[in-house]
Amino acid sequence: MIRSSSSPSRPRHQPTRSSSFVPSLRRRNTSVSTAALDPESDPATAQAVNAQHALTEEIAEIKRYEDFTTIDWVQDAAREQLRRKARRKERAGFWEREGRIGWRRRIAEAYDAGQAWIVVTLVGAAIGLNAAFLNIVTEWLSDVKLGRCETAFYLNENFCCWGAESGCPEWKRWSGFWPVNYLLYIFFAAMFSLTAAALVKAFAPYAAGSGISEIKCIIAGFVMKGFLGAWTLVIKSIGLPLAIASGLSVGKEGPSVHYAVCTGNVISRFFDKYRRSAAKTREILSASAAAGVGVAFGSPIGGVLFSLEEMSNHFPLKTMWRSYFCALVATAVLAAMNPFRTGQLVMFSVKYDRSWHFFEILFYLIIGVFGGLYGAFVIKWNLRVQAFRKKYLAKYPIYESVILAVLTAIICYPNMFLRIDMTESMEILFLECEGGHDYDELCDRQNRWRMIFSLALATIIRTLLVIISYGCKVPAGIFVPSMAIGASFGRMVGIFVQHIHESFPDAAFFATCDPDGPCITPGTYAFLGAAAALSGIMHITVSVVVIMFELTGALTYILPTMIVVGITKAVGERFGHGGIADRAIWFNGYPFLDNKEEHTFGVPVSQVMASHVVSLPASGLELRALERIINENQYQGYPIVEDLTNKTLVGYIGRTELRYALDRAKKDQMAPGHAKCYFTTTATGENLRTPNSTMPAVTFDTMSATSSQLSIDLSKFIDPTPLTVHPRLPLETVMELFKKMGPRVILIEYRGRLTGMVTVKDCLKYQFKVEAQENPHHSGTESQQEKVWNIIKHTAVWFDDKLNILRRKLGIGGQNIRLSSPVGPSDQRDFDTDRDRGGAPPGRDSDDALELELEDRGRSGGR
Amino acid sequence: MIRSSSSPSRPRHQPTRSSSFVPSLRRRNTSVSTAALDPESDPATAQAVNAQHALTEEIAEIKRYEDFTTIDWVQDAAREQLRRKARRKERAGFWEREGRIGWRRRIAEAYDAGQAWIVVTLVGAAIGLNAAFLNIVTEWLSDVKLGRCETAFYLNENFCCWGAESGCPEWKRWSGFWPVNYLLYIFFAAMFSLTAAALVKAFAPYAAGSGISEIKCIIAGFVMKGFLGAWTLVIKSIGLPLAIASGLSVGKEGPSVHYAVCTGNVISRFFDKYRRSAAKTREILSASAAAGVGVAFGSPIGGVLFSLEEMSNHFPLKTMWRSYFCALVATAVLAAMNPFRTGQLVMFSVKYDRSWHFFEILFYLIIGVFGGLYGAFVIKWNLRVQAFRKKYLAKYPIYESVILAVLTAIICYPNMFLRIDMTESMEILFLECEGGHDYDELCDRQNRWRMIFSLALATIIRTLLVIISYGCKVPAGIFVPSMAIGASFGRMVGIFVQHIHESFPDAAFFATCDPDGPCITPGTYAFLGAAAALSGIMHITVSVVVIMFELTGALTYILPTMIVVGITKAVGERFGHGGIADRAIWFNGYPFLDNKEEHTFGVPVSQVMASHVVSLPASGLELRALERIINENQYQGYPIVEDLTNKTLVGYIGRTELRYALDRAKKDQMAPGHAKCYFTTTATGENLRTPNSTMPAVTFDTMSATSSQLSIDLSKFIDPTPLTVHPRLPLETVMELFKKMGPRVILIEYRGRLTGMVTVKDCLKYQFKVEAQENPHHSGTESQQEKVWNIIKHTAVWFDDKLNILRRKLGIGGQNIRLSSPVGPSDQRDFDTDRDRGGAPPGRDSDDALELELEDRGRSGGR
Repeated sequence: MIRSSSSPSRPRHQPTRSSSFVPSLRRRNTSVSTAALDPESDPATAQAVNAQHALTEEIAEIKRYEDFTTIDWVQDAAREQLRRKARRKERAGFWEREGRIGWRRRIAEAYDAGQAWIVVTLVGAAIGLNAAFLNIVTEWLSDVKLGRCETAFYLNENFCCWGAESGCPEWKRWSGFWPVNYLLYIFFAAMFSLTAAALVKAFAPYAAGSGISEIKCIIAGFVMKGFLGAWTLVIKSIGLPLAIASGLSVGKEGPSVHYAVCTGNVISRFFDKYRRSAAKTREILSASAAAGVGVAFGSPIGGVLFSLEEMSNHFPLKTMWRSYFCALVATAVLAAMNPFRTGQLVMFSVKYDRSWHFFEILFYLIIGVFGGLYGAFVIKWNLRVQAFRKKYLAKYPIYESVILAVLTAIICYPNMFLRIDMTESMEILFLECEGGHDYDELCDRQNRWRMIFSLALATIIRTLLVIISYGCKVPAGIFVPSMAIGASFGRMVGIFVQHIHESFPDAAFFATCDPDGPCITPGTYAFLGAAAALSGIMHITVSVVVIMFELTGALTYILPTMIVVGITKAVGERFGHGGIADRAIWFNGYPFLDNKEEHTFGVPVSQVMASHVVSLPASGLELRALERIINENQYQGYPIVEDLTNKTLVGYIGRTELRYALDRAKKDQMAPGHAKCYFTTTATGENLRTPNSTMPAVTFDTMSATSSQLSIDLSKFIDPTPLTVHPRLPLETVMELFKKMGPRVILIEYRGRLTGMVTVKDCLKYQFKVEAQENPHHSGTESQQEKVWNIIKHTAVWFDDKLNILRRKLGIGGQNIRLSSPVGPSDQRDFDTDRDRGGAPPGRDSDDALELELEDRGRSGGR
Repeated sequence: MIRSSSSPSRPRHQPTRSSSFVPSLRRRNTSVSTAALDPESDPATAQAVNAQHALTEEIAEIKRYEDFTTIDWVQDAAREQLRRKARRKERAGFWEREGRIGWRRRIAEAYDAGQAWIVVTLVGAAIGLNAAFLNIVTEWLSDVKLGRCETAFYLNENFCCWGAESGCPEWKRWSGFWPVNYLLYIFFAAMFSLTAAALVKAFAPYAAGSGISEIKCIIAGFVMKGFLGAWTLVIKSIGLPLAIASGLSVGKEGPSVHYAVCTGNVISRFFDKYRRSAAKTREILSASAAAGVGVAFGSPIGGVLFSLEEMSNHFPLKTMWRSYFCALVATAVLAAMNPFRTGQLVMFSVKYDRSWHFFEILFYLIIGVFGGLYGAFVIKWNLRVQAFRKKYLAKYPIYESVILAVLTAIICYPNMFLRIDMTESMEILFLECEGGHDYDELCDRQNRWRMIFSLALATIIRTLLVIISYGCKVPAGIFVPSMAIGASFGRMVGIFVQHIHESFPDAAFFATCDPDGPCITPGTYAFLGAAAALSGIMHITVSVVVIMFELTGALTYILPTMIVVGITKAVGERFGHGGIADRAIWFNGYPFLDNKEEHTFGVPVSQVMASHVVSLPASGLELRALERIINENQYQGYPIVEDLTNKTLVGYIGRTELRYALDRAKKDQMAPGHAKCYFTTTATGENLRTPNSTMPAVTFDTMSATSSQLSIDLSKFIDPTPLTVHPRLPLETVMELFKKMGPRVILIEYRGRLTGMVTVKDCLKYQFKVEAQENPHHSGTESQQEKVWNIIKHTAVWFDDKLNILRRKLGIGGQNIRLSSPVGPSDQRDFDTDRDRGGAPPGRDSDDALELELEDRGRSGGR
């Protein structure tokens, strides 16, 4: 690669350029106050800006259709600057023609300035409406499993018996005979999950699961077409109530974020400003995420903080302010809709009258530790189940969901806390045991031990169900199930503490208790348990406290909540960094640099960079050679060097831009294969003197007239100022650059020469390698998985046999089950989708998982 | 500067280097899995790391004493990486000698890992204790102005009359005759403010004011010696209760942040880890700021959000987590101390039972608009007063404070809402008018119009007092005064609305009101008014909502608070960006890039950079020449180029490092003046092959033995990988780099050649220039200021005359007033201090303010 023979040609050239360059800089500096501040003065520049702007827009339009790439935020920002300049100029021209500052200008400007607020308001309102609809439908579907309203079939139990304390004659269970109820319960569960899974599979495979991990990556700049599309929005909104009503141990809060972000994306697409700028869309997506959590928990501020703490790796104050507004509008709309007719935003809003005692901190510790352990346990095992699902169950998503729902229904019906909706059960567990409110003698003294046993059972069963259910192919979140588990554990602890206190009321330990009234409030323990479990599974702190606080308004319980969440966090951190969303990102191999982690590699970037870079010479390359290079590899972009020998870096060109430019050259110019391509204009000095227009004012139309067919000027397609770093810069600093500035690629330049190139993927690969060396994976899970799969297969075959016998006997066909025949076109699609989503291959846990498997099809940054 | 004659000597050299470089890279890449992951294997490297580490520490120690510079976060991070590596190695060696993994290792490692938590706990506890002390003292001092407790002089009214509803015989006013009370009130106010101002002036001038702006800059990396020192902490803690008790319209929340951050700084200094790393100290400072707000408002989560939204421009999740913990500990300690003996953390904690109605949003709008206008008005006029103060009153800080206190006392005593402590008055204004709680017939129907008038008067007078008081030379915040103003305005609106409702109870507008009970709760309007004013003055949103929420626990009032704060923010933004703290930073000319603002300059960095850079040749410069260069200018660092002709960039050396290296060379090596200095080692290939140790393993001791006295190797003092950018990179991107990465200087490199250099100061200068051209300042304020000053002077002379006459008549001397004679050494110091704090010269508002006046003495980034 080093041909020293050609180097003597360079030195004569370089000093000239350098000397012409330095004076021009000096000149610029002295005239800075006039030219710089009024770049509009030069009409040629203005035209150049407009031409460049038009070109950029066209390429941006093409880029929109490239899936599974990452957005280059640095370029995006530069494009946005260009756009603003062009707009300003355009407007100036228009109003000059108009002659005066009239009302039209005012309106146009006001619209332009207020567009963001209009979008945010619309998005917020849509999210609020959708949330109200979901709440009503979910409640009705949940109650339909248990009985019906005789007044009107579309009323749920609450509305049917409006005003009545507990139950009313209009609300009838399906039958007086409990086995029939049991079977109907199971049947409805199966139907609901079948519908949800079939809808997801047929129309929007991306609507499955929670979506939080993917949205994190999308907000960070990863492009996933359709993940935030209208179909996903519709199917998620319809499938979510079904999935929840089916009784699966899944929650609505994660999917709620997903449909909210879909809403934000779909609505913002109608506005030109957002169609064009990824950075602006990112703002709206962050704001929508905040609104999604806001309506799910009735906690607008909690939503903003969740968006800040969990969703966004880039959260400037402006975005916070947008999120705040969006969450406010969504919550206000939801409040105005008043779906529960109670004036409350959520089902489990409670109030505590009693305060806590210092000695209770001891028990809060237990709850906090439980939260941490719960999170670690569920994350670990759920990831294993996910790996198993990817490997063996990917082809049977509908079967899986239905079987899970039936299993859940069979197991849960006998337990009083598992039978009802999770939000309802939380509402009951949070209760203070004051006045007449009671559910099946929960507050009763005699039943204490039975309750403790029942709650312990509920905790364990629900945990196992969450592990196997989260990630199945229906819309499914993990927030509420976790909170329900935490609440049942907490209530159990609370009842236990209450029992101790009542057994030894005079112990010194309980000295601060008021001797007359009740001392321990088990409901608050349930409340703290819910906070602990939520924090444990997601590894978020401040948002959990605020959400719990907004749920209850229990001012006095802020400190206990903080203590519990703090302990949970401390315990959770011992078992690995990041909550389940972060771990799922890692598991799926998305190109996401987590800003929660800190690493000390102690190596320079040159150890990580790719040094064999396909670079293009700045001049003289023939069109066909260039085309061959593009076709030979799939790299996302190519550095441009002055010549291939000494590799003086000139710029960088993206694959899309290059492809576009070549296509246009061939079409407009009819350039032959031997035409030479130039990436730099020869008039370098000229070019540098007007740095406002980073490109000369040449469009293709003028170009084809002026230049010969045999030379193609590609200079306006390159990025002349890519981010470059020194090869000895520490890797940590380069990763900071990626995280904070968000470029797609960083070039490594040593004394003006290109020596390498580094992408996020390279950094992640190296990080995984180091991590794998530090914590070697144990093998053997693969054979275990194989065993489990065999058991499942045998069971399925056995069931199938039995069913066939039954069918033959009865003479009926299993129409519904046939919906998801194991082999078929739609199954194939589902499997494909899974691969599209950057799915890691099965066996991530095994040794060969060392190699980070990222999508090769269209990954960020190429070489 | 361009000498083309010397360029032919280069080409022969360069290809060699390049060719030796590329293969070495390739080799490194193949062996990455062994050498890179286990850099400890090489003992020579290990020694080099240790030597380099020792050197870095020594220089860091020197840098600690450089005032008014900015921290280079990129370098700081690199240093921290080096430190970790050294520590890991050191420990590995130690435990190898130890032979086994024993308990000592475990303890040492646990201590090391837990050090951060120990520090945060200590800091939090100290802040909580201090807050409890302050609360008790402040309340006592405030009550002493009005009367005394006969049981024990050290009890305030509340404790004296513990349990009694309103007043008790033990608590006596000073006299039964009101003019005596009035005079005593004024006398105490004067005494308190005199003491506070004298203490501040004598011991810790930095303890004056709020400190929030300066802390923002310090957290961003600006070094201000002593601003967070122990003396400041002590004086701020003593002066704050005095200042508040003096009745001045100042609050304790801003200073509370300041003393909290001082506590954090002072305590963390005892720990080695924090003495060394600026980044780690920054974490603790952010956490302390959160705890400061947390204890001031009894709102731990609000504190965390305040720290996030207002204080820190860099707030990773780790810092959030530390802040959370610190605020938790501080609040828990404060709660355990229970200073008010009410179980509440703040004086004005209230509870609302009633909910709000949708029609009330109309009135909330009024309150929101008021908040925005209030903020804009106070910011504008307070900055003018500050300019006036700097110009004319800088020499009379004690006079000023005393006169202000007397004036405030005279004006405020007759108004019932102004007479009492601001927190107390807020507590009263927030009340719900339910049950027996009432203060001077505030809830009485007959007095409605009198109350409205009284509250309007309080609003106006307090606003004017805040404008002239905030910024005077005692510890003084603006949070609580603003809230008190907002509360009185809000209550006024509330009473007015209540009156309308009671006049037209059957109007359709009030249809949603409950016909039986009271409909409007004026207390909630006061509450919302306080939120609006706080948001208006500070331009913060989410934190205000959470703080107000934590104050009241009024779950149902979240939406109204959000609406009001949203409107305030929208109105405030129309009058200029940034709250009073940001504007004060701008006013004082601190080098702080605000991340709230967004600019479109549309120019490349080459228009802003300094192109005449004093750079040093990499080899051959004589020691005396180097010393002359250093002495001739005060630049903070110098780029190093291969030779001055072609300016190939090699690295960057800070002034401190260079000065240190030269001093050591002269001392240890006895290098003569004609000794040649080398910034690069000749064995470049060797150097590149071991990139783990960015420097060769040479210390001064070995160096003096091996190398001749005539060559000084300075290569290990340079930063070989400074951040460089292309001259055509947009200025906005460069500013993003400064904001997000935090380097002190960015070098501009064009094809490997140095063409310029840019600092934060350059960016700010350009920004101010653009802003000034867009909004030209109006002149004329100067002559107005002159007039005001003449009036004040004449009044002072007149008073002095009268006093002298009185004195001569009575035969006594004005001892107290003499304490602050206008001319004296201490005054001189105060004036100096003011200049030290980066104070802008008088007349910032006038036309010549265009030129950004930053401290020349030791400013960040030099050239």
